[in-house]
Amino acid sequence: MEEAITTTKITALAGGVGAARFLRGLTRAVPAETVTVIGNTGDDSVMYGLHVSPDLDIVSYTLAGIVDTAGWGIAGDTTHALTQIAGYGIDTWFTLKDRDIGTHMARTNWLAEGMTLTQITDHIRTSLGVTARILPMSNEPVRTKIVTLDGVTRDFQEYFVKRRHSEGVAAVTFDGARAASPAPGVMEAIEQADRILVCPSNPVLSIGPILAVPGIRETIARRREDVAAISPIIAGAALKGPAATLLPVVGAEATPTGVAALYRDFCGTMVLDRADAAQASRIEALGVRTLVTQTIMHSPAEAELLAKEILQL
Amino acid sequence: MEEAITTTKITALAGGVGAARFLRGLTRAVPAETVTVIGNTGDDSVMYGLHVSPDLDIVSYTLAGIVDTAGWGIAGDTTHALTQIAGYGIDTWFTLKDRDIGTHMARTNWLAEGMTLTQITDHIRTSLGVTARILPMSNEPVRTKIVTLDGVTRDFQEYFVKRRHSEGVAAVTFDGARAASPAPGVMEAIEQADRILVCPSNPVLSIGPILAVPGIRETIARRREDVAAISPIIAGAALKGPAATLLPVVGAEATPTGVAALYRDFCGTMVLDRADAAQASRIEALGVRTLVTQTIMHSPAEAELLAKEILQL
Repeated sequence: MEEAITTTKITALAGGVGAARFLRGLTRAVPAETVTVIGNTGDDSVMYGLHVSPDLDIVSYTLAGIVDTAGWGIAGDTTHALTQIAGYGIDTWFTLKDRDIGTHMARTNWLAEGMTLTQITDHIRTSLGVTARILPMSNEPVRTKIVTLDGVTRDFQEYFVKRRHSEGVAAVTFDGARAASPAPGVMEAIEQADRILVCPSNPVLSIGPILAVPGIRETIARRREDVAAISPIIAGAALKGPAATLLPVVGAEATPTGVAALYRDFCGTMVLDRADAAQASRIEALGVRTLVTQTIMHSPAEAELLAKEILQL
Repeated sequence: MEEAITTTKITALAGGVGAARFLRGLTRAVPAETVTVIGNTGDDSVMYGLHVSPDLDIVSYTLAGIVDTAGWGIAGDTTHALTQIAGYGIDTWFTLKDRDIGTHMARTNWLAEGMTLTQITDHIRTSLGVTARILPMSNEPVRTKIVTLDGVTRDFQEYFVKRRHSEGVAAVTFDGARAASPAPGVMEAIEQADRILVCPSNPVLSIGPILAVPGIRETIARRREDVAAISPIIAGAALKGPAATLLPVVGAEATPTGVAALYRDFCGTMVLDRADAAQASRIEALGVRTLVTQTIMHSPAEAELLAKEILQL
């Protein structure tokens, strides 16, 4: 069985913290070099002049084993730059620590020199010793925007970090998505993978932008039988973040069934937690197979077990 | 005598380290709020996406009492961001430390928000508790470029920091200067000052860009009798930097007499070191009065003495 797994090429669609935790297990379950991650760049933004790619960095830092316990940033990092900025009276609601700032300075420098986000992301992950491939979904800017119930359009980080996703949301848009194209390697990674996994990330905010890049959703749909998604919703709630409140915004129930309904055109299997076992029949009725297991990952070892179980389907 | 000094308005033209050391003494000799500094921005550049204003920051940090013993940067600062950048294989020849990076991030952020360099510089110095006014020479970009003897045009920092001003120089240009205008307050500071001082900065690289902004040199020239310049050249050498090798590039001797010849149209008095006392008669023959004294400043107290001696002229 192990041997069958090690020869498999796996492509995973990923957001931030939840995805990274699963990917840490996946890259323990199979040789990391057989894994290609397609990362969300809808959360990218320019902060203090620096190009920040939160989800790509979370995945890189996590797989490099240097991620902070918060799930993002670098463990043991310092806040000297931010303290200086705060001393100038600037509201430093977006936390950037010093070593992490180095990553953003390098990225910004390379972008100014004409390197693509694909090249930059590859350079960062290899420098950090990560053997899994990490691809941005697109090299063109796609920017997730939140339209609040008050009719205000907010940049993603302002909604998510500054206002701690506390506002009612009327709509989510992905500015630039229609004009964007998949980054080099993305379509091949989908077409050539033996298995395609959708990480337990926010279906609206994290997986949504990836699927909004023209061509990606359709290409994954042609691989539907080989696609498995892990529900980020367990017992009606997200472990982290506003997935449960955002699913209804796109007309979906905040349950694994709701996620399956959103994904059914491209996803053949939904992986759901035992807490939601009762929903399996509803999901199957949508034409989506189910795997009911423990999806909460308390440790890399548990994430590895979850990955193995999915790959053995 | 003290009282006469305290009621005087003083405007000083300043480059980086040498100027800052003199200004620290000047602001001990007179109430700092009576001093207006016009700072060189020809060395400004974008590093890793961040707008760096080396000379303005050196003056602000020095007058705030937080400058590093190197003469630039913030004392006790750390290099965590730079270490991260170096880990990505980037040649980190331009040292930016973490707290200092905070300053550049704040400046870059404010520029993106539409604030002027004048407003930003004022905000930084007041946040740091500096009571002397610090004005950039211009809010338009003026960029000092070095044409080497090999015919290569280099950005200033590449010539000065990366290559440690080791190359032969054919010419120095100030890109953008012709289209630039003095920043708000600059012309008034020159017109309304009781005394105008030219700090002991590189006449070509530090004072040159200020004088290249249309209108500034002519306006100072109208105040010629109230202008005193401190020679940055002592016994044929600069205490720091390539002034001695650059003066011949603009046709001037690398002596206080050479500096006086460059400045004679706008400068009524040249302050030179006792080591160069023999040059006084040559300088006087150019129509420039002289003050021969100790111009090397080993301490803020010595800088204060020098400032007092000049103001008592």
